[in-house]
Amino acid sequence: MLSSDDNNIFLGIDGGGSKCKAIVMSAENKILGTGISGPGNPLHGFEQATSSIVTSAKLALADAGIAESSLQNIVAGVGLAGVNLPVLFDQMKNWQHPFKTMHLATDLLIACLGAHQGKDGAVIISGTGSCGFSYVDGEEFTVGAHGFPHGDKGSGAWFGLQAAKQVLLSLDGLVATSSLNNKLLTMLNVSTGVELVEAIAGKPAAFYARMANLVFDAAEQGDQIAFAIIQEGASYIDNVAMQLTKRCPPRLSLIGGLTPRLLPWLAGDVQKSLSAPLNSPEVGAVFFAKQQSQNVNSTCRAGK
Amino acid sequence: MLSSDDNNIFLGIDGGGSKCKAIVMSAENKILGTGISGPGNPLHGFEQATSSIVTSAKLALADAGIAESSLQNIVAGVGLAGVNLPVLFDQMKNWQHPFKTMHLATDLLIACLGAHQGKDGAVIISGTGSCGFSYVDGEEFTVGAHGFPHGDKGSGAWFGLQAAKQVLLSLDGLVATSSLNNKLLTMLNVSTGVELVEAIAGKPAAFYARMANLVFDAAEQGDQIAFAIIQEGASYIDNVAMQLTKRCPPRLSLIGGLTPRLLPWLAGDVQKSLSAPLNSPEVGAVFFAKQQSQNVNSTCRAGK
Repeated sequence: MLSSDDNNIFLGIDGGGSKCKAIVMSAENKILGTGISGPGNPLHGFEQATSSIVTSAKLALADAGIAESSLQNIVAGVGLAGVNLPVLFDQMKNWQHPFKTMHLATDLLIACLGAHQGKDGAVIISGTGSCGFSYVDGEEFTVGAHGFPHGDKGSGAWFGLQAAKQVLLSLDGLVATSSLNNKLLTMLNVSTGVELVEAIAGKPAAFYARMANLVFDAAEQGDQIAFAIIQEGASYIDNVAMQLTKRCPPRLSLIGGLTPRLLPWLAGDVQKSLSAPLNSPEVGAVFFAKQQSQNVNSTCRAGK
Repeated sequence: MLSSDDNNIFLGIDGGGSKCKAIVMSAENKILGTGISGPGNPLHGFEQATSSIVTSAKLALADAGIAESSLQNIVAGVGLAGVNLPVLFDQMKNWQHPFKTMHLATDLLIACLGAHQGKDGAVIISGTGSCGFSYVDGEEFTVGAHGFPHGDKGSGAWFGLQAAKQVLLSLDGLVATSSLNNKLLTMLNVSTGVELVEAIAGKPAAFYARMANLVFDAAEQGDQIAFAIIQEGASYIDNVAMQLTKRCPPRLSLIGGLTPRLLPWLAGDVQKSLSAPLNSPEVGAVFFAKQQSQNVNSTCRAGK
């Protein structure tokens, strides 16, 4: 086992609704180890989130060949979904964490820093949820990130929910039937409206997000109803891109699990404005931790 | 205390998502007593639903001056939200209930029987949720009743959700601001998008339904965005009415908590086709129990 001190090892955490990813990196940005555990979003419970963070961190340390006991010597950048809500930010900030120092940020900031190698930029995220985020001249700006079902238009969950609504209405004879019916009923292994309702009642966003692909499939096969759904969602994402562009980010990236399906449906000028993300959110968390540590050190050197 | 036997006293139960209502009636349809308890919808838990049913029944018996021990001699009609789902119907059907006999039906059937004095007819229900239901020549037909957030268009929860979506989008600068913003933010005592998200995240349909009135208020004060929301919801309810009318119900009633707000927005011919409901759903549950008992007795007399 290697040992570590506080200056040459950094931990980055990306805690989302379904999993928590950790990465251990050297001061020279070399990846030393990675780890993955369960949900790290404190919206779904403080105990589970903090447990997932510690588990993923220990796995990353083990992967790097560093003793678990080194956790207390390591500066961690922790980016979490949900901490844009003040009550959750405060709860996590007061956590008796096992690190030397914890720099807490939203999942959006670390994703943006990761995509742009720690520099200014903007990201559009469309996975289970959706949002836009820019970080320019130290100023954060968010569009969306409202959650499901009241927001997250253009996300996987939103596309899946539109499909479910459409199929339920058509089974009631209130709107036209489309190829979405067969696709959705087959996927969920049901055949009637009552069975469909039983299958989806009370299900979370991640469940609906799994239905998004079939809407894209149907639209690409010429289904006009699916086409209209995709166009509405893509148009919203175009508007998010325009809002971000007003902030003059040097780079703009589209990230999240829906990226490959959504990209071809965006407006031509939006597609042209996109650059590939350079690094993952957990690497962005390390960049964040380093920047915050430098700020503290600068402050110290300035004698404050 | 009076005593009762199995032939002259009937119990009617209307078990919904927020409360369970019970009524005790004589064979001559005289109301002897009523009781109200907590949630009676097995969707939210079998133990809670059955406990609420028994509690409301005992309260109604006490109100009627009948001994609790008489429960075992009484025929009960039990109408429950959720039992349109086969798994919940079976679970409730297998309940070791304390009645002499339990006749189980959906909340929709007992509401329809109540509205039309036990006779054929149809109802449109718009309260927290929405649906249409007809009972003609022994045949049940349902439109909607899909639940929130994937269905229940034109319901209180749906109107509230549209308001929340609209305000969130406008706070992001993606759509025009309307009078819904001030109304909603004031009602929830918040001032920013983040606070609004915090206030509504993970909330159930009943929470959203409480926002419905402000959408109607705004529309009636000339707010064009609220107007469009109300028109979309009312148009859906008009379509539900048309689907029901195809079944040729002798009477059609609009019931549920949103009735007074929604009624003026429906199409003129739909408004004209509506008749006032004659009795409550729990009275409908008594009608159902009596009809089912007569069927059983007829069958017995026929020697089967």
